[in-house]
Amino acid sequence: MSSAVDSASVESAPRSPGRPRSTRADEAIIEAVLDLLSTGSTVESLSIEAIAAKAGVGKATIYRRWSGKGALLADALRTLKGQPPVPSGASVRDDLVLLVSGIGRNTDPRATKIMPCLIPEVHRSPQQYALYQELVQPRREIMREVLRRGVRTGELRDDIDIELTMALLTGPVLMQKLLKWHPDLDEGKLPERVVDAILAGIAA
Amino acid sequence: MSSAVDSASVESAPRSPGRPRSTRADEAIIEAVLDLLSTGSTVESLSIEAIAAKAGVGKATIYRRWSGKGALLADALRTLKGQPPVPSGASVRDDLVLLVSGIGRNTDPRATKIMPCLIPEVHRSPQQYALYQELVQPRREIMREVLRRGVRTGELRDDIDIELTMALLTGPVLMQKLLKWHPDLDEGKLPERVVDAILAGIAA
Repeated sequence: MSSAVDSASVESAPRSPGRPRSTRADEAIIEAVLDLLSTGSTVESLSIEAIAAKAGVGKATIYRRWSGKGALLADALRTLKGQPPVPSGASVRDDLVLLVSGIGRNTDPRATKIMPCLIPEVHRSPQQYALYQELVQPRREIMREVLRRGVRTGELRDDIDIELTMALLTGPVLMQKLLKWHPDLDEGKLPERVVDAILAGIAA
Repeated sequence: MSSAVDSASVESAPRSPGRPRSTRADEAIIEAVLDLLSTGSTVESLSIEAIAAKAGVGKATIYRRWSGKGALLADALRTLKGQPPVPSGASVRDDLVLLVSGIGRNTDPRATKIMPCLIPEVHRSPQQYALYQELVQPRREIMREVLRRGVRTGELRDDIDIELTMALLTGPVLMQKLLKWHPDLDEGKLPERVVDAILAGIAA
């Protein structure tokens, strides 16, 4: 019983007493990762040595906090992505515009340099692919729930495929963010126009 | 006058008499570029030296045929992409399925390794971006014409935005090819399902 109490108190307490989860060193380390990735370092060539040097900490400081490069990279990308938007719940159309507008939108200018560089990694490494899937999962679940709500309220057809609809909504915007695939499209208005076009269909 | 005749005959003749445009050496050089790119070489690190060594030719042979790495890369990617599909013209829906099915479809297994790796290049270099745009332009014009035809025949609404519609049709499939973004989607059926969903819309 005393051991059960111990493990419960360990779980709710910071991992290492006296060293809270986010310290200035942690922030400096995360910033160093994002700086290195945005200035040309590939995930492959990124080294704990370079990160430590850039952050002005010792390698041991990094290893005390993260098990390795993969875990550190995951935290850095999570920081870069920020919090997902919160739908108001009033209109499915407006909530979808909000969520689609959030794709690839990032106040951190490093994101536009970092995100495209990670695409090859997704193909090279199953770990990287899993990391991405994990990163987008919370946002994806928010969109899924808005679509389910639309079906329930009758705003959306009840025969839609939720996963396919998510691909229809996100694909064009993500493609444009990553590749500026269609040079003539106005990126600012794209989310709203995509949502409206997909709601309405194009058949006569 | 004699000089005008000369330049006309030079233009219609092979660039170098006795060395036709496509020789076995040319093919070996193109293959070398594709092999190097598909086995981890980045566009940046790709060197004429490495290509020459891999193709078993001298650097001079490459420079006789291509002005530099950019021109050679453009030809190699054109070879990799192959010929665009030819719509039958019977049904706009079927033609769109044909064209959307052609996105990222490639009989050359090296393409799935090469194409994702080129995305960061598009961001790093305006030349690379222009090369991509030039590569996809013929396919894009074929799809544009199918959509215009659909508007003319009344199969499509006459208020659709052609460029936006192209992004709607290509984005989800390209995204899935590049990132397997939605792990649960069946890639084989995706083109047909995307076309039908976009034709029909999702609003109740």
